[in-house]
Amino acid sequence: MTESSTSNEIGFIGLGIMGLEMAKNLLTKRNASLLVWNRDTSKSAQLASEFPSQVRVANSPVEVVSNCNLVYSMLSTIEASQAVFDETNPEGVLAGIHENSCIVDCATLTPERMSEMAMATTTKGGQFLAAPVSGSKQQAEQGILIFMCAGSLPVYEMVGEDLDVMGKARHYLGESIGAASKMKIVVNMVMGGMLTCFAEGLSLAKEAGLPSDALLSVIDAGGMSCPLFKGKGPSMVQGKYDTAFPLKHSQKDMRFALELGDKLGQTLPVSAAANEVMKKARKKGHEDDDFSSVIEGL
Amino acid sequence: MTESSTSNEIGFIGLGIMGLEMAKNLLTKRNASLLVWNRDTSKSAQLASEFPSQVRVANSPVEVVSNCNLVYSMLSTIEASQAVFDETNPEGVLAGIHENSCIVDCATLTPERMSEMAMATTTKGGQFLAAPVSGSKQQAEQGILIFMCAGSLPVYEMVGEDLDVMGKARHYLGESIGAASKMKIVVNMVMGGMLTCFAEGLSLAKEAGLPSDALLSVIDAGGMSCPLFKGKGPSMVQGKYDTAFPLKHSQKDMRFALELGDKLGQTLPVSAAANEVMKKARKKGHEDDDFSSVIEGL
Amino acid sequence: MTESSTSNEIGFIGLGIMGLEMAKNLLTKRNASLLVWNRDTSKSAQLASEFPSQVRVANSPVEVVSNCNLVYSMLSTIEASQAVFDETNPEGVLAGIHENSCIVDCATLTPERMSEMAMATTTKGGQFLAAPVSGSKQQAEQGILIFMCAGSLPVYEMVGEDLDVMGKARHYLGESIGAASKMKIVVNMVMGGMLTCFAEGLSLAKEAGLPSDALLSVIDAGGMSCPLFKGKGPSMVQGKYDTAFPLKHSQKDMRFALELGDKLGQTLPVSAAANEVMKKARKKGHEDDDFSSVIEGL
Amino acid sequence: MTESSTSNEIGFIGLGIMGLEMAKNLLTKRNASLLVWNRDTSKSAQLASEFPSQVRVANSPVEVVSNCNLVYSMLSTIEASQAVFDETNPEGVLAGIHENSCIVDCATLTPERMSEMAMATTTKGGQFLAAPVSGSKQQAEQGILIFMCAGSLPVYEMVGEDLDVMGKARHYLGESIGAASKMKIVVNMVMGGMLTCFAEGLSLAKEAGLPSDALLSVIDAGGMSCPLFKGKGPSMVQGKYDTAFPLKHSQKDMRFALELGDKLGQTLPVSAAANEVMKKARKKGHEDDDFSSVIEGL
Repeated sequence: MTESSTSNEIGFIGLGIMGLEMAKNLLTKRNASLLVWNRDTSKSAQLASEFPSQVRVANSPVEVVSNCNLVYSMLSTIEASQAVFDETNPEGVLAGIHENSCIVDCATLTPERMSEMAMATTTKGGQFLAAPVSGSKQQAEQGILIFMCAGSLPVYEMVGEDLDVMGKARHYLGESIGAASKMKIVVNMVMGGMLTCFAEGLSLAKEAGLPSDALLSVIDAGGMSCPLFKGKGPSMVQGKYDTAFPLKHSQKDMRFALELGDKLGQTLPVSAAANEVMKKARKKGHEDDDFSSVIEGL
Repeated sequence: MTESSTSNEIGFIGLGIMGLEMAKNLLTKRNASLLVWNRDTSKSAQLASEFPSQVRVANSPVEVVSNCNLVYSMLSTIEASQAVFDETNPEGVLAGIHENSCIVDCATLTPERMSEMAMATTTKGGQFLAAPVSGSKQQAEQGILIFMCAGSLPVYEMVGEDLDVMGKARHYLGESIGAASKMKIVVNMVMGGMLTCFAEGLSLAKEAGLPSDALLSVIDAGGMSCPLFKGKGPSMVQGKYDTAFPLKHSQKDMRFALELGDKLGQTLPVSAAANEVMKKARKKGHEDDDFSSVIEGL
Repeated sequence: MTESSTSNEIGFIGLGIMGLEMAKNLLTKRNASLLVWNRDTSKSAQLASEFPSQVRVANSPVEVVSNCNLVYSMLSTIEASQAVFDETNPEGVLAGIHENSCIVDCATLTPERMSEMAMATTTKGGQFLAAPVSGSKQQAEQGILIFMCAGSLPVYEMVGEDLDVMGKARHYLGESIGAASKMKIVVNMVMGGMLTCFAEGLSLAKEAGLPSDALLSVIDAGGMSCPLFKGKGPSMVQGKYDTAFPLKHSQKDMRFALELGDKLGQTLPVSAAANEVMKKARKKGHEDDDFSSVIEGL
Repeated sequence: MTESSTSNEIGFIGLGIMGLEMAKNLLTKRNASLLVWNRDTSKSAQLASEFPSQVRVANSPVEVVSNCNLVYSMLSTIEASQAVFDETNPEGVLAGIHENSCIVDCATLTPERMSEMAMATTTKGGQFLAAPVSGSKQQAEQGILIFMCAGSLPVYEMVGEDLDVMGKARHYLGESIGAASKMKIVVNMVMGGMLTCFAEGLSLAKEAGLPSDALLSVIDAGGMSCPLFKGKGPSMVQGKYDTAFPLKHSQKDMRFALELGDKLGQTLPVSAAANEVMKKARKKGHEDDDFSSVIEGL
């Protein structure tokens, strides 16, 4: 364990599409001082030139962690995360953890990876908050992300005002790091199920000789109007499934949700039926297509 | 059959909440001349005083129909519709039908009633278009209703520009008057199914110890965001089911949809599963509660 | 209405494959005197020559009914039944109904036809018992049929000893003639569902690389051993569906059962799922194949 | 590894209810010479006194294995199996394995335990055949067990004639030891599904006012007649669920089957629906009741 820092600088590791916008919101709305690191140093340099009095650039993740009590990280893949956190990397995050370290990881990783990172951090005396976000670049820019947090409650409470300038809502789901991924699974289960209901509607309308564009229009005019149906409807009618979210991943989340329901004794008959339709579509060769290809399973 | 009219006046029968706004759009945006009738004559009088050069008030439905080739009717209930159309009523709509009569009925009635009206109209030499709308007062005011039309194609084509000032979309579903009600059944099937998926998500989150408000917030932040979930979510969490759309009606539409699918050979496994959940909730005593009480069937 | 009979002769109309064996059991085990009629008179003559002291041959159905208080009829088709019962036929059953007439019809007809016959009989002052049987020629010969009775309770009680020599079990399902057909629907629902479960097992075993003959053998060795699986299993494995009971009829019964469940508020999620598999198989072109082709719907 | 044996004696370890009858069939129908071991030595002694010229009693499992090339074992529980096989036990089976050892284990253990035993045996140079049986005491006595074999094919071929006197059928499911447990899972999936179909039939009949005993009788009279329905039906009608096979175990097998189907891409919509009914019944407090309590989940 290195010595604790006494500075007020906040660390920020990972200035990708999302991270950059999140950091800017901390700079402009919280007037924060940031010590940043990014693999592609041109991004760090650019941010420092935009906010010369607020941003310093570190040479390594370990430098960020050693010098700050609070560090946000937003690394987009497990690979990037592993490279940056890796215990065997003397320049990595873990090498710098000290007893006042509070790590807030905002990436969407697997629960296993999240748990490993939390464990490694706490083993070294630090505290860890998993804070994956719902939303993409636009939401990050506008500061309207949704934070689903799990892990250290003191850290969650400490960073509340920061999260409130980066997002429009934040939720603390409990100490178990797995809670965030459970939430994601529940959300994706609902999404998979409702898209399958929509697929049944499109199929029934077609068989009944009702024009698809009329159905889409009527659905969009009422209480069911949502980006999902608006985005997927026309292409489902045409049988085009350009992949945004692959069917195999959607079905995997459905399976995880069913296993969770099974473990908890919660009946999920509609989701179970939707899962079977997804499996049928997968079996027909659509597993790498978009999950809207679930319609092929009917 | 009475003689055909040669005037350019358009008839409008029924100036209730919806009809009044629809008529106003015809007056302001199409500069139409209307011959109107309403049971409550104060409404007709008021409209005539607002548009003195465009609106004349008739003394009876038969007067409207006799004097106009094109007549819109917007009567909110089967009872009102029967009273006004009734063949035995010498002052009713049917008494005035002539060979150039084009009746466009915009009310949401049963398919049986719609078919009776269409049959009675064509028997007397007229033409009939069923044109029920999706939307309520606000959409009528703003001219953004959705028209689901079935019946006479020539009438549908003739009234296109009228419909376009009263609504934002119009769909011709075929000559069979039943097409409009089939569309409604399909739409309600999707709605019932997706609300059941949502209910499963709420139930699973609860069992998993995840906070309901977090789930609602996350769902509302993404592609699934829709008025239905926003409107029903918080009350479902509280177990309150103030009736907007009774479960028994929702389940009835689900049953009709499944029967239609059965007849057409369209598999609907998810809707079939949702129907069973609805039945379970009904059996537990929620049949007169709002259809969001489907969550009680899990 | 003709005058009532005082003879002890029992009438028997219809000496086909089933009727002949049933009549023989009444003759040998109940020592009954029968007045018989059959369209093909050679069969009546043969029976009379076998049992000269017990069997008399009538020239028409009306003669049978006029001369006997109790009359069994076993006509295999709706057409035969209509021809023999027909009100406009002066030689038919209805022409002979009197106030002591007790008609026991053992054929499997539609509930509508059964109800018509019951109504026509009671209108003329007689009593009617629907008593369709489960079982075929072998069960008729051995006197081990199952009677599912509905209609007149007094008649049911009066004929108990007769039914007991023709069958091994008899059930009174209530006064409503429809009860017998409801029973059939329930039974066929269970049959359709369990065959679909079996189909899923065969399909899963195949995908898992487990030999089908092993699965059939293991299933047949335990609590699930039944003529249905034994009869259908090997041909399902080979994808052969020689029609004994067409898929479309099995699915129709499933639909009727689901409608009954819907009306009564009874959830039937597994049968509903099985119905969808049947529909899928129908859609793939198996509707006239045996109902074991349900496996094609997976 | 000890030296290989050259005797013709066959080893038999475990003379419990099943093992004793199986051994007797080898003695009487194959005229085999057996070297036996049983924890309760009175049973070994009794068998030796019944078949003095054919049976020798060993003092330990290791003695049996060391002296025989072929050894059957039939130990009823994992605990007994572990105690007898245990590597650290100098008197156990593993201590005696030699390069000609062929171990045929006929117990129904978990796939994990089976795999451990197979691995330990082959590591020491022997061969292993898992050969769990379907059937109980009566089937063992009459030599009509069903063998589901997996593992060494040469051993399977070598013991064919032995298995044929102990059983009426034998199946080789492949080299993977897991095949036998997969088969069991498939079989139990079908059983759980068909019992749920049966439960739906009983429930629907009840709601329709049809007498349950009539339904049971009719089902038992036809193609669906099976020990399962005969055994469970009357108690299900009475709501009594004395535990033969606990619901939680049945549902666990159902879950395993669904996971297997998911992995293999096999749709199982009916089993998935049945699983949800089972979960519902579990949630209502029937998890330790017999699996016929699935009816409570409707």
